[in-house]
Amino acid sequence: MGIVASVTDFLHSNNGNIISLEQHVDRSEQRFFMRVEWMLEDFTIPEAKIDDFFGTLIGQKYQMQWKLYFTDRQPKMAIFVSKASHCLYDILQRYMSGEFAVEIPAIIGNHDNLQYLADRFEIPFYLFPITKENKPEQEAKEIALMKELEVDFIVLARYMQILSDNFVSTFPNRIINIHHSFLPAFKGARPYHSAFERGVKIIGATSHYVTADLDEGPIIFQDVAKVSHRDTVQDLKRRGKDLEKLVLSQAIWREIQHKTLPYKNKTILFE
Amino acid sequence: MGIVASVTDFLHSNNGNIISLEQHVDRSEQRFFMRVEWMLEDFTIPEAKIDDFFGTLIGQKYQMQWKLYFTDRQPKMAIFVSKASHCLYDILQRYMSGEFAVEIPAIIGNHDNLQYLADRFEIPFYLFPITKENKPEQEAKEIALMKELEVDFIVLARYMQILSDNFVSTFPNRIINIHHSFLPAFKGARPYHSAFERGVKIIGATSHYVTADLDEGPIIFQDVAKVSHRDTVQDLKRRGKDLEKLVLSQAIWREIQHKTLPYKNKTILFE
Amino acid sequence: MGIVASVTDFLHSNNGNIISLEQHVDRSEQRFFMRVEWMLEDFTIPEAKIDDFFGTLIGQKYQMQWKLYFTDRQPKMAIFVSKASHCLYDILQRYMSGEFAVEIPAIIGNHDNLQYLADRFEIPFYLFPITKENKPEQEAKEIALMKELEVDFIVLARYMQILSDNFVSTFPNRIINIHHSFLPAFKGARPYHSAFERGVKIIGATSHYVTADLDEGPIIFQDVAKVSHRDTVQDLKRRGKDLEKLVLSQAIWREIQHKTLPYKNKTILFE
Amino acid sequence: MGIVASVTDFLHSNNGNIISLEQHVDRSEQRFFMRVEWMLEDFTIPEAKIDDFFGTLIGQKYQMQWKLYFTDRQPKMAIFVSKASHCLYDILQRYMSGEFAVEIPAIIGNHDNLQYLADRFEIPFYLFPITKENKPEQEAKEIALMKELEVDFIVLARYMQILSDNFVSTFPNRIINIHHSFLPAFKGARPYHSAFERGVKIIGATSHYVTADLDEGPIIFQDVAKVSHRDTVQDLKRRGKDLEKLVLSQAIWREIQHKTLPYKNKTILFE
Repeated sequence: MGIVASVTDFLHSNNGNIISLEQHVDRSEQRFFMRVEWMLEDFTIPEAKIDDFFGTLIGQKYQMQWKLYFTDRQPKMAIFVSKASHCLYDILQRYMSGEFAVEIPAIIGNHDNLQYLADRFEIPFYLFPITKENKPEQEAKEIALMKELEVDFIVLARYMQILSDNFVSTFPNRIINIHHSFLPAFKGARPYHSAFERGVKIIGATSHYVTADLDEGPIIFQDVAKVSHRDTVQDLKRRGKDLEKLVLSQAIWREIQHKTLPYKNKTILFE
Repeated sequence: MGIVASVTDFLHSNNGNIISLEQHVDRSEQRFFMRVEWMLEDFTIPEAKIDDFFGTLIGQKYQMQWKLYFTDRQPKMAIFVSKASHCLYDILQRYMSGEFAVEIPAIIGNHDNLQYLADRFEIPFYLFPITKENKPEQEAKEIALMKELEVDFIVLARYMQILSDNFVSTFPNRIINIHHSFLPAFKGARPYHSAFERGVKIIGATSHYVTADLDEGPIIFQDVAKVSHRDTVQDLKRRGKDLEKLVLSQAIWREIQHKTLPYKNKTILFE
Repeated sequence: MGIVASVTDFLHSNNGNIISLEQHVDRSEQRFFMRVEWMLEDFTIPEAKIDDFFGTLIGQKYQMQWKLYFTDRQPKMAIFVSKASHCLYDILQRYMSGEFAVEIPAIIGNHDNLQYLADRFEIPFYLFPITKENKPEQEAKEIALMKELEVDFIVLARYMQILSDNFVSTFPNRIINIHHSFLPAFKGARPYHSAFERGVKIIGATSHYVTADLDEGPIIFQDVAKVSHRDTVQDLKRRGKDLEKLVLSQAIWREIQHKTLPYKNKTILFE
Repeated sequence: MGIVASVTDFLHSNNGNIISLEQHVDRSEQRFFMRVEWMLEDFTIPEAKIDDFFGTLIGQKYQMQWKLYFTDRQPKMAIFVSKASHCLYDILQRYMSGEFAVEIPAIIGNHDNLQYLADRFEIPFYLFPITKENKPEQEAKEIALMKELEVDFIVLARYMQILSDNFVSTFPNRIINIHHSFLPAFKGARPYHSAFERGVKIIGATSHYVTADLDEGPIIFQDVAKVSHRDTVQDLKRRGKDLEKLVLSQAIWREIQHKTLPYKNKTILFE
């Protein structure tokens, strides 16, 4: 197929030092995927022209879809929360310590319980209480805010509202959710209660891109913990929180690195 | 409630040295569970009379259900197989090395693919090919054989036939199955194909008691393995086998030790 | 041995409703361990006299050692930090959300990097910079502060100073540390560098009680994560932080519940 | 550096369809590693000449080291055993079922305990009892046998003899051992006893290439299991066996696929 040869030759002949290269072939879909990271230092094509040159010389030839990211530009991430604080703390610690090279222009809440936390870290907090009646207009305001702030992606950090199809389709594959079960088991509400009722011996958490189908979007990351007959629903919830925050933060970390590629209903996780 | 005090006093006052004691309270069901292991050496009540004495002095008083097991009597386990060999090898290795203190009076197959293995270890192999037409009569023969051999419990070691309700109800909570998914996700046939289609990042296996509802019986043990977008269905199957054999053998080990107590749709796993 | 019978009879005959009971026999040490939790409601012995009555009627008879804890009294926990923030955030989130039913009268730092965090959550922060010269006097002040504040136990949340034997022996089995390796591998400084050099495929973290022997105290909790040849030392550090905070917080949670019993160089973890 | 471009161009321009390509840069060592798999169908360079052509056109230019493997040639694997059977069963099941595409020309034992198993599967068994006195001559015979049988690599499946430096250096990076601990913790003899004494909460197993330094060779695979204060040394041994057999078989599977590349004291595991 020669794609690897063509792309690496394009980079090499223009003095682009390849830092990492990974490819993947999905044989069932007959699709080829590739991620290349190279240094701009010494690269002979100016930053602003890379997209055009690549498209003209390589992309068209192979009918590729491609995206260019520059690591010196930090993506902008908005965080949606409700009442539970564990995911937000985890995100803020990573943000404050520099692990997440990201800007956080807004924390959005449908409750004000976590406003104190946004305030303490001097991140703008926007309150949009949601009722059945006001949902369309509140979501319209949220969408306008996201656009005004030029948000790159949205993180639902245990946000307990279902987003409308309209909201979701405005940000395709740009909304990351954490679901508190091992999907596809226990979709929807109250998964820990369902897990308790079923008597499972392992619980889980799943981060995924949000699509119009509830809890059906491309899975990014999953993790599990062993539980026993001694664990009550409260114990499952407590232990699940540890999974939720890690599984969400790992998805965010990959998103910031541009290492997750959603394709159809799956994701390719580059190393 | 005084049950622990009464039981331990009964044992202690009759010179029964307690080796282990574990209790569990299911508050949602308002039920109390307890497992005690003690030494018969020096115990003043003769083996044959323990059941009567315990029932009369303690059991009736608290309206208990109880079972007595004597560790010097090895349980009898029958193994049902089809074509896949990995679980059977794993069981036979543990049996031959003495890890499984059990008798294996029969291996039953609906195919003859694994007869060679039974033959090499000199365990009687019984072939009962199953078709839609002959299923009732073949199962009747199998039931008769289980009774004749005084089998205590049955292990379905990747046996690819669904047992009839009649068969299952003849051995309530005495049939252990291994299902090749992380239940309740991917019940029924071809779970690895479903897992692949869904794009999960973790696969699992589940051992459970067989009930009339397919893949819905009390879960005994579960384990998982991380997978990636690079794994094909064949890779999932290959990696799943490692889970299947361990998860099944751990359930068998507990059954032999009388450490699994099914109750309603759950199990209590004593340590 | 009759201990279980005697204790449960003591509780039962005084209207103490047992909530949980767990026992453990260490056969190599010929020691018996037991943890009982019961309700004081309806218990006929007044709270202040339980210790005396239990000792006189039961404890002496069996030459037991025992401790009484009342769940309505929250323990006091001091936190020692240096520069790394991940463990402190994790602890504070659990504290603020009520998961940790504990009082935090002081955060002690040998650097002031995390003072902002203590300030934001309005927890008193004490700065004790440590040099070779001032270490004895600074530790003396810390000990005095701990006593003045009536601290029950101390948590070293990535505190990068080695405590003197004098300090450690003042709080026997009351100091919990997190070590950033899978002990006993990679004791001492720079464990992630050592792990990288050795080319291990799994890294770990260990929470343990601090004793005079560096990284040799009773282990409370351990967890691990898989790594690969692609991970740099920086990657190991980043991924290790997730282990460190969870493994430390799990040890703290158990300490607050009085569910960890150190004995010689090991711990018994009651469920 | 252009290596990727040169290699992929070499393959592409000779009609070699690339199935997988993976590269790795070890920055601390300033070394570049790459694994490419391509189809020989339609490849214009005949099988017998690939090595020469590749070396002349590409390898020399970049001062590479390279190895060519053809997937239609099954490697030859010898298995060394002592008394424990769990690893051997696991290997034989995978061999018999076709999971291991390998030839097994010999099983070598220093005891005859497992001869029955080799006999049942009709694999030649060679008994070489080892004493202090006869070790050099027995090893000489073993080496001669390996060479006569043209063995590609040797698996020590819980072989309880330390190989001499002479033996090891005859098969550099061609001997795979399973050590029953989480290396580098608990090197040498009786690791489960040491783990028990230390009171660890997790045990492990490690597969590695054998070098002259005992248990210091490049690590291929590691896995762990949680244990508790209730586990005796016997329990650790029993549970460790499950780790040992999986961790060894995963190393063998990778070896057969030529997916493990030892370099200095580490391994690169291609996907």
